[in-house]
Amino acid sequence: MTATTGSDHAQHPAPPGYHDHKADHLARLHRVEGQVRGITRMVDEDRYCIDVLTQISAVTHALHEVALGLLDDHVRHCVLDAAQTEPAAADTKLDEITVALRRALRL
Amino acid sequence: MTATTGSDHAQHPAPPGYHDHKADHLARLHRVEGQVRGITRMVDEDRYCIDVLTQISAVTHALHEVALGLLDDHVRHCVLDAAQTEPAAADTKLDEITVALRRALRL
Amino acid sequence: MTATTGSDHAQHPAPPGYHDHKADHLARLHRVEGQVRGITRMVDEDRYCIDVLTQISAVTHALHEVALGLLDDHVRHCVLDAAQTEPAAADTKLDEITVALRRALRL
Amino acid sequence: MTATTGSDHAQHPAPPGYHDHKADHLARLHRVEGQVRGITRMVDEDRYCIDVLTQISAVTHALHEVALGLLDDHVRHCVLDAAQTEPAAADTKLDEITVALRRALRL
Repeated sequence: MTATTGSDHAQHPAPPGYHDHKADHLARLHRVEGQVRGITRMVDEDRYCIDVLTQISAVTHALHEVALGLLDDHVRHCVLDAAQTEPAAADTKLDEITVALRRALRL
Repeated sequence: MTATTGSDHAQHPAPPGYHDHKADHLARLHRVEGQVRGITRMVDEDRYCIDVLTQISAVTHALHEVALGLLDDHVRHCVLDAAQTEPAAADTKLDEITVALRRALRL
Repeated sequence: MTATTGSDHAQHPAPPGYHDHKADHLARLHRVEGQVRGITRMVDEDRYCIDVLTQISAVTHALHEVALGLLDDHVRHCVLDAAQTEPAAADTKLDEITVALRRALRL
Repeated sequence: MTATTGSDHAQHPAPPGYHDHKADHLARLHRVEGQVRGITRMVDEDRYCIDVLTQISAVTHALHEVALGLLDDHVRHCVLDAAQTEPAAADTKLDEITVALRRALRL
């Protein structure tokens, strides 16, 4: 393994668990970028507040989709692989997930 | 601009209720745009899944802030103004808000 | 006004804004009580985790319904009434709502 | 009833993944039951709407805690055990979790 100088995760040389669906995730995220730009434009154009709120709900929804897709890939690949080869690492990965979900739920 | 009588919000001639905080909302939305582009880049660079999820939580949080700010402005101006001048219109506006919140909460 | 001895809200002698729908709210809350007892029983009986999670989602959903119903009643009555008779009080009530929504969204 | 071969979770003979923390989950759920009864009483006594909403937020928060705790236990035990002994079963269990999370997020 060659040296890496970055943060912990820069040392993860393996492709991420979401590698197989990367194109899908990117396509969704590009769509979200467009939606957010659309919301900015609506506010800039003084569009009706309720219509802006509707678009914000749609973006939040789309981000939940992306997050759930990434999480599913992550568990299915990174965590299950670790479970089969290095159980202690699987536990650590589950701790990370729980922390991430607590953060998402503001617990 | 000629008079409009309809209910088409795109034609709303009055400034929206969020007018006074428009610059704040736009600044927040520009920040959200940057955050979403950052997330896209992270996925493109195969960054660690959990780090991507953390950023998605941050964006969702920021969008909640924008939505709540817009809603607060909307109620404080559009709805309360209507309550004082045209009570039936205030009721209609509250119906709209309830529909928007139901949509946001997926009820 | 006769003396009240309790907290601020005990001094609200008027019926709450949700008075007209009180029976509906109580019926929903009784249903939620039953659902939560059902969840406790499921855990006590070692029921499958995913089935428990499904029930928890249902309760959270039902609580959102109750909360939105109460909020709608509150704005429609307390806030709009205040808007017509005592604008400064309406502003204070909107501040309260924003604080409550921030708390609900953990902002 | 002795051995079961089906996938009916009600017949699951093994203790659930949350077995080790069952007492904690039950304690939390009993607390939630008390909180919901308290909310019902508040509505029954015409308490101020905002105070009711605050309590509903607290219950929703507490239910998120229970759900996350159960999910963490479930993945850590049921899913990881399956990953080590029967990979196809682990995949099925992850499908179940994704469905449950989609339901929770209303996706």
